Amino acid sequence: MKRKNIPSVTINRISIYHRCLEKLIENINKRKPKYISSSEIAQMTGINSTQIRKDLAYFGEFGKRGIGYPLIDLSRELEKILGLDKKWSVIIAGAGNLGKALVNYKGFQKRGFTIKGIFDNNPSKIGKKLGHIFIYDIKEIEKFIQAEKINIGIIVVPADSAQEVADKMVTGGIKAILNFAPIHITLPPEIKIHNVDLSIEFEGLTYYLNL
Amino acid sequence: MKRKNIPSVTINRISIYHRCLEKLIENINKRKPKYISSSEIAQMTGINSTQIRKDLAYFGEFGKRGIGYPLIDLSRELEKILGLDKKWSVIIAGAGNLGKALVNYKGFQKRGFTIKGIFDNNPSKIGKKLGHIFIYDIKEIEKFIQAEKINIGIIVVPADSAQEVADKMVTGGIKAILNFAPIHITLPPEIKIHNVDLSIEFEGLTYYLNL
Repeated sequence: MKRKNIPSVTINRISIYHRCLEKLIENINKRKPKYISSSEIAQMTGINSTQIRKDLAYFGEFGKRGIGYPLIDLSRELEKILGLDKKWSVIIAGAGNLGKALVNYKGFQKRGFTIKGIFDNNPSKIGKKLGHIFIYDIKEIEKFIQAEKINIGIIVVPADSAQEVADKMVTGGIKAILNFAPIHITLPPEIKIHNVDLSIEFEGLTYYLNL
Repeated sequence: MKRKNIPSVTINRISIYHRCLEKLIENINKRKPKYISSSEIAQMTGINSTQIRKDLAYFGEFGKRGIGYPLIDLSRELEKILGLDKKWSVIIAGAGNLGKALVNYKGFQKRGFTIKGIFDNNPSKIGKKLGHIFIYDIKEIEKFIQAEKINIGIIVVPADSAQEVADKMVTGGIKAILNFAPIHITLPPEIKIHNVDLSIEFEGLTYYLNL
């Protein structure tokens, strides 16, 4: 199967397996590299082992029957598959609180995501900095994307300007958007968009509170 | 199967189905309530229809063979299962940028999550407000949780104080924690914790950028 046809739910699970392996590797420290079985990954992730084997098999034969997967090698392979061995340039549209929070979010830099600029339409913000990142006029966003070869755009503007901002990002040449605005954005099919809904994070919790 | 033994990945998917039904219901407007098949849900969510039928079957027989699931009834049932038909009281520990962003996040109120207070240890912040929510001394967090019957605590403090804050929440009587701090928090097994890692939101995107 071509990689672009692999179901997105599989990609999400690959991401979960990768995190799980990383945690294990952190913990084994200087001991010898170990093998891990799909049932051990199943125990850590709650995803059943048949599903795990099926998901991994989309990308190759990583395991040995009866032994399992080589922990460090598999982790590196998944990192490559997910594109996490590369550096990605990111811009943020919206210099509000969430924009500020994302600029200061430690996890991004660690994962190879570098924020190159912030964009806003508020004259009192343009020209200033958030953390060590400049705030530019939103009018310059298309040129900036081209000039700086930006890969990913983050949208944290209010809902009513999210579509307009997304269109500008696409015109500039961005191929992937992470949208925090609580609105459906329509884009050409070749552009990948991921909508983040922070309230969905609660839902797993309320289920258990409700038991 | 007892509800507390249902796998957490099933609960996550129930949440996805629920969102999907909600979107459909928004769009049908005043037309007659319709039925929806598991293969239609499969098409919208990318989860396969056997899995969908299996997940829903944990909670009852909602569908009719050959007809499908009644759209509005199923949506209401899932809402109840997820505890989203109730009001939940929430506090935030950490009056930083992410705390500010969460206070202003429109999606929470809409979903029945009410933020009752923010807690910080910075004397220059205590006694002030973020949006319309008071910032209290972190020392008062246990008493506040008891007095206000808080259900869910959100942790947005720096990593090195996250464990201490979580312990205080648990002492106060909180049963569920949403943790944004990039650190593993250890809690008694009966306390539900969900770790939010914003960089994982990027990973689905970089996979496609990397093709």
